[in-house]
Amino acid sequence: MLTLYSSGSSGNSYKVRLMLAKLGRPFRLIEVDIFAGENRTPEFLAMNPEGRVPLLAVDGHFLAESNAILFYLAEGTGFLPQAPLEKAETLRWMFFEQHSHEPGIAAARFWLRQVRGGRDLRTHDVDRWMEEGYGALNVMERHLESRPEGSDFFVGAQLTIADIALYAHTHVAEEGDFSLAGFPAIRAWLARVAAAPGHVDMAWRPQGATA
Amino acid sequence: MLTLYSSGSSGNSYKVRLMLAKLGRPFRLIEVDIFAGENRTPEFLAMNPEGRVPLLAVDGHFLAESNAILFYLAEGTGFLPQAPLEKAETLRWMFFEQHSHEPGIAAARFWLRQVRGGRDLRTHDVDRWMEEGYGALNVMERHLESRPEGSDFFVGAQLTIADIALYAHTHVAEEGDFSLAGFPAIRAWLARVAAAPGHVDMAWRPQGATA
Repeated sequence: MLTLYSSGSSGNSYKVRLMLAKLGRPFRLIEVDIFAGENRTPEFLAMNPEGRVPLLAVDGHFLAESNAILFYLAEGTGFLPQAPLEKAETLRWMFFEQHSHEPGIAAARFWLRQVRGGRDLRTHDVDRWMEEGYGALNVMERHLESRPEGSDFFVGAQLTIADIALYAHTHVAEEGDFSLAGFPAIRAWLARVAAAPGHVDMAWRPQGATA
Repeated sequence: MLTLYSSGSSGNSYKVRLMLAKLGRPFRLIEVDIFAGENRTPEFLAMNPEGRVPLLAVDGHFLAESNAILFYLAEGTGFLPQAPLEKAETLRWMFFEQHSHEPGIAAARFWLRQVRGGRDLRTHDVDRWMEEGYGALNVMERHLESRPEGSDFFVGAQLTIADIALYAHTHVAEEGDFSLAGFPAIRAWLARVAAAPGHVDMAWRPQGATA
């Protein structure tokens, strides 16, 4: 059985829980308390030298990086297009998510809402998160606006792991002080993702398999 | 024929030139002068709303994100492992590259060497690039040190697109004021990548196909 090392409040961890729930795959969940430093212990660093969740244990191997885990789980399913160009386009949005979207949007939520600032929070960091985060939201809005009729998701007509990757942090962007008021296409897309079959929210956990 | 929009000094663009050279695939190269703002024109933004190179035109479609382009070009070749877990591990290092490696290491080179600072260069940005960049180099060094005998590259025994993605910015990290003196495993790996068949350096261009 798969084992997922996950943090309840982490958007990156939520991506993987959502994917596993949609696939109906049983898995063991191990909650890692990052606020207590459980991701920095020698034992955890031996599994993932980056000290990050999510981390998927599969066949004795530890797979890191939320989007690589999504790809691994989605291969051979309808959540990853098979046509080479559509598959590459799916990855394009996932690399965009990790490079241009998550660093601003997730960092703002983490520091403003979860850590609540403290002495380490610097104005210039907040400014940068806002600039980068709104830049990413603008790219998403323009892409969604330009989609042809019937293309309700980021790639093609069906929900893919590109949508799951982007949904995780976007649907809680307002917790990081971003306003989605000016992004109607994003708000409509968020509602479509949340209405898709097998959707679960961030609080969902697999029954009877939590360590 | 493929058309690649590319910037000569961009590590992300170099990844794709290196891949195409290794594959021996003919392509048309269009140089985009990012210092003259050619990536911010309405024409370019219509092709890629992010305003970034590299951008690959294939069958009338514009594919963005260097690592998504690498994946597209490598599918079905020896540069992308076919086994699901090895393929996911390849992507793991490519997501690491875009999230944790490129933002520090490439930004330092871009601002310190290419733009050469100016009024916009702030000490706190340089500090962050150094912290993030050395953090990423440490993760790479530890991974390379721990590889079993015969595993000369990031995933398995053969060079993959994970190596190409990580090589592009790492081999010029010293141009961004990073020292690789304390990273012997990285230096040995850089030499192995540079010695692999079909290697070309950043200055290489396809003959007779440059627009």
